[in-house]
Amino acid sequence: MNRPLILVTNDDGYESRGLKHLVKLMLLLGDVVSISPDKPMSAKGHSITTTPTLEAKLLNARPGFREFVCNGTPVDCVKMGYQVLLDATPDLVVSGINHGSNASSNVIYSGTMGAAIEACMDGLNAIGFSLDSYDPEAYLDHLDDYIVSISKKVLAEGLPKNVCLNVNFPAWNGQPFKGLKVCRQAMGRWVEAYTPSVDENGRPCLKMGGRFVFEDGGGDTDFEALNDNYVSLVPTHFDMTARHCIEQMRHFEHLFN
Amino acid sequence: MNRPLILVTNDDGYESRGLKHLVKLMLLLGDVVSISPDKPMSAKGHSITTTPTLEAKLLNARPGFREFVCNGTPVDCVKMGYQVLLDATPDLVVSGINHGSNASSNVIYSGTMGAAIEACMDGLNAIGFSLDSYDPEAYLDHLDDYIVSISKKVLAEGLPKNVCLNVNFPAWNGQPFKGLKVCRQAMGRWVEAYTPSVDENGRPCLKMGGRFVFEDGGGDTDFEALNDNYVSLVPTHFDMTARHCIEQMRHFEHLFN
Repeated sequence: MNRPLILVTNDDGYESRGLKHLVKLMLLLGDVVSISPDKPMSAKGHSITTTPTLEAKLLNARPGFREFVCNGTPVDCVKMGYQVLLDATPDLVVSGINHGSNASSNVIYSGTMGAAIEACMDGLNAIGFSLDSYDPEAYLDHLDDYIVSISKKVLAEGLPKNVCLNVNFPAWNGQPFKGLKVCRQAMGRWVEAYTPSVDENGRPCLKMGGRFVFEDGGGDTDFEALNDNYVSLVPTHFDMTARHCIEQMRHFEHLFN
Repeated sequence: MNRPLILVTNDDGYESRGLKHLVKLMLLLGDVVSISPDKPMSAKGHSITTTPTLEAKLLNARPGFREFVCNGTPVDCVKMGYQVLLDATPDLVVSGINHGSNASSNVIYSGTMGAAIEACMDGLNAIGFSLDSYDPEAYLDHLDDYIVSISKKVLAEGLPKNVCLNVNFPAWNGQPFKGLKVCRQAMGRWVEAYTPSVDENGRPCLKMGGRFVFEDGGGDTDFEALNDNYVSLVPTHFDMTARHCIEQMRHFEHLFN
């Protein structure tokens, strides 16, 4: 039987430790093609490049592994990888390991999850892996069993149509994870603070900072699972319809009838 | 009673006709602050700017109207507008009029809807308005009654918590709209084709093109409403949890217990 074909990408760029770690793990499971941005692309969400500027360069090739770098966004990487660089349909697309949590509403801003969701829109099995630590040197080895087991299960069984996985890991705190929890996305938001700064040319500008405000509860959210040292897994789709409000909104139809 | 305060933004940039048309309509309803990107920002999704580069410039000011331009994304415009430029909480945030449909899965890529969803995350009433035509000179007057009536209703009654509106209009075809339909987001996707091109420096590169593939049905989708000359309204939220799959995914928990 052929080895599975696995496409790997991320949003922190081709030099990040998270990407290299994920490639190393995926090589245990199949042939790997890595295509990632040539520079950090955090918080690029589902952004795509519509100008004629895209290119992909081959950085490394050996049997069972090819590594490309692309001058687009994470979503561009998936589109280019799938539709230009690969000869076959990948059995799995994995994105990460992101340096920073993509739990709760971070999923909306995340380039890592943008890539996974794009692959899902293309009908592919896709998983985003993220670590709840912004430290680029953060310890990663405690994730290995989880990443390999989840990926093997998806390779073996597939995922429901139009659904991908948003998997987040607590940072290493000296204790093994308590397990994995299937969760819903917590409701929360960033409250920004803009501080005066200077750009690379010394010109005055603003820099965005912020703090995350958790506005949810109930014990079934990804944010709470992470805080309790569980790995969180949220089945994620790209249907943003607030279905619970459709009937409630019908009165808008009467404005014009 | 004070006039409502309305924040207007878009993703086509401050020079677009759609923005100017929307500002003109909102001035019928309240005081307006417009803050929009200094260049086209289509397909930037929920992208934000994390580098210290942001600035907003005042272009115009007269009683009841201020116009700013910002060097960030549409989501940056909302965050900057709400948290830096405005002294009061806006009663309504409107984004558009986008030159191009944001129905179906276009909502995921859309900077117009990124801005509306960001405002919704901030707890504000928000509507994205888009026209199903990429022609920057497209006829817009047939939208006026709808935009004004929908906006007045939202100003008067508000929206459910964490829900915004994705309103799409058919292009003018010589016939008045049949009415408005409250819809769910159609499932569909773009299939890309990459064609050889050259960038602005004459270097070889690829340019993304594509065609939209509609993979849905049932008569209750925004895509179908537009094709039948109805205005579509989709209540939209930022919870991407595939709730119908949570129980089905529980077996992932057993991998580690």
